[in-house]
Amino acid sequence: MPNTLAKPLITLTTDFGFSDHFVGVMKGVIAGIAPGARVIDICHDIAAFNITEAAFVIAEAWPYFPKGTIHVVVVDPGVSSSRRPILAEAGGHFFIAPDNGVLSMVFDAVPYKARVISNPKLMRREISRTFHGRDVFAPAAAYLAKGVKPAQFGKSIHDCIRSDAAANVRLGDGAWRGSILKTDRFGNLITSFPTERFAGVTSRPFEVRVGREKIRRLALNYAEAAIGELFVIAGSSGYFEIAANQASATSILGCSAGAAVELELF
Amino acid sequence: MPNTLAKPLITLTTDFGFSDHFVGVMKGVIAGIAPGARVIDICHDIAAFNITEAAFVIAEAWPYFPKGTIHVVVVDPGVSSSRRPILAEAGGHFFIAPDNGVLSMVFDAVPYKARVISNPKLMRREISRTFHGRDVFAPAAAYLAKGVKPAQFGKSIHDCIRSDAAANVRLGDGAWRGSILKTDRFGNLITSFPTERFAGVTSRPFEVRVGREKIRRLALNYAEAAIGELFVIAGSSGYFEIAANQASATSILGCSAGAAVELELF
Amino acid sequence: MPNTLAKPLITLTTDFGFSDHFVGVMKGVIAGIAPGARVIDICHDIAAFNITEAAFVIAEAWPYFPKGTIHVVVVDPGVSSSRRPILAEAGGHFFIAPDNGVLSMVFDAVPYKARVISNPKLMRREISRTFHGRDVFAPAAAYLAKGVKPAQFGKSIHDCIRSDAAANVRLGDGAWRGSILKTDRFGNLITSFPTERFAGVTSRPFEVRVGREKIRRLALNYAEAAIGELFVIAGSSGYFEIAANQASATSILGCSAGAAVELELF
Repeated sequence: MPNTLAKPLITLTTDFGFSDHFVGVMKGVIAGIAPGARVIDICHDIAAFNITEAAFVIAEAWPYFPKGTIHVVVVDPGVSSSRRPILAEAGGHFFIAPDNGVLSMVFDAVPYKARVISNPKLMRREISRTFHGRDVFAPAAAYLAKGVKPAQFGKSIHDCIRSDAAANVRLGDGAWRGSILKTDRFGNLITSFPTERFAGVTSRPFEVRVGREKIRRLALNYAEAAIGELFVIAGSSGYFEIAANQASATSILGCSAGAAVELELF
Repeated sequence: MPNTLAKPLITLTTDFGFSDHFVGVMKGVIAGIAPGARVIDICHDIAAFNITEAAFVIAEAWPYFPKGTIHVVVVDPGVSSSRRPILAEAGGHFFIAPDNGVLSMVFDAVPYKARVISNPKLMRREISRTFHGRDVFAPAAAYLAKGVKPAQFGKSIHDCIRSDAAANVRLGDGAWRGSILKTDRFGNLITSFPTERFAGVTSRPFEVRVGREKIRRLALNYAEAAIGELFVIAGSSGYFEIAANQASATSILGCSAGAAVELELF
Repeated sequence: MPNTLAKPLITLTTDFGFSDHFVGVMKGVIAGIAPGARVIDICHDIAAFNITEAAFVIAEAWPYFPKGTIHVVVVDPGVSSSRRPILAEAGGHFFIAPDNGVLSMVFDAVPYKARVISNPKLMRREISRTFHGRDVFAPAAAYLAKGVKPAQFGKSIHDCIRSDAAANVRLGDGAWRGSILKTDRFGNLITSFPTERFAGVTSRPFEVRVGREKIRRLALNYAEAAIGELFVIAGSSGYFEIAANQASATSILGCSAGAAVELELF
């Protein structure tokens, strides 16, 4: 796949937040290597070290960008360990990330090829122990944007780490175990159960179990439920969500992205 | 009015916040249609669904951008209803927004022409029920940036919805009802009473009534007032503001943009 | 030093936050004057009026940008006073800021030349009392990006205000007084004691005094300490930091950037 964008486009998804200079520094490094590249922020407010949430966000966002876009995802709890940085090609896009499962939901959706990023000429000369976003991932994206071929970054690999956060496991007849993919700003919990595949939830009795709670109520909108009551709703992202009327389901349940959820249809 | 910018400029004002991928996705859609357009964020932290606050923010911001700029405002509580998407031309700028009053304060300031956006060729092929920022408004801005003429978007309309949030109503001799236009990060409440037109506040006894409180104190700076005391101050935006020394007037009063305020001059 | 970037680059560091239109308006002013300039946000979440924190952030960030970059720093508690706006050249970069010490840590690191910004032709025609980011600093950056020579902005000055926030004072044998440079999103406190120059902390008994607390524990990672226990750790920014395991050191100590810290080596 050639890098087809006349004006290369790089997106950033991180857990760096907005109160530090980290994201700005990544953009400075990119501007120094590839002055013609444009950079678009997807999200920097991923919960710290939450790979599941980042996996969900990049999987939701990338299809809306033009082919040839370079997506950089840095949620990297293993930054000082031996986890590999990778460059993947999937669906006509490029993805640069630590090999920790953060691209799992992209790889679930489309075929991909991956390489390890190991060529020291395509990194900053000094690699810090804690900030590979600046030293490894931003330079890789910038050199790719500049036209360096994927093969120059390192060898092909076939054993990328895959998270099963979004993979629902069948527990028995009409019962599955899934997980929370993301919490949103209103405290809703997005589950890993797609509304299309689990359409039975809208027509049959069901039970969703999360934390210590069991939820049997489906609502079409928030106002249907009592104030503070937990319910299940078909969310705009294509997954069932757990919500509470005028309250934060996240606070009530005390759980975050990655937490287990069970669904049973009766 | 021709689209006069050599390098088209699009601004975004939304209530989407920063913890999701929504704003990034809008930029991806724009980049796919109009790769040469630049995008500038004005504010994404408008209180959810608060049309008054968004109306104030875009009215404060647009005059500082070059002519020909395309301003997209997506605060859209009626997204799944029949409210119309509109494209307006005013003051040499373009405005793309839901027809829900969010452009009222722009239209109060300068003459305008408006059209409904109804041409399906200038939208995404599939229109979701909940995310017209991505499916309708971002594509409209991008096609306009690319040179599509306003007339191609849809028919002229003359019945745009106008909010009277910023319109002060005379209640009697020396008495007006206005509203809160915005709360700022320090908890100050910006009222709809312009400091120039209501200059009497600075020279005569007055009373401002908001929530359950009555405020008769004018201060030239914060330190003048007792700690936690509410007072009125001439704000930097050209409106009188309600503030409290070392405290949040918003928290004390428990009100937000859109709330009613009465002013009486004695 | 010529302005060497083919595509000029401007960075912004402010305490304006994200809930208002202030940053967007600065970018609109820049786009109107210098349409070809790119703008990168370094940080807008500096604690309000906290010069020390901004001084630290810009000093950490600028070296990662290409030479010729124009860095605008607006943390400006003296905005309506007689403090001067300045344009400095240092390390091959440009810096535009109020003369209040906010560039001290840049000037500590590299030789610099400074000028006052006094040419009214390079400002907005009307200068507000409260928003020089829009009226003075953004235009100055944009005109510089457009090729206006530094000498046209105003006279050279040699008495820039320097903050000693990052300057550690020797109190006696093995004892120094420094300060907190920044608090991060996890509540860690970055001190002014560089890990290289104060390497003794890692090999000898020591005491760090901040607020009412005395800390004698060094940890190599967070999990080493008891929950809520304060400890000293070598931070990624090259300074010793004060942290707490699963707690916010900032909340425990109740202090922010600029607060005094003492270090004693035994």
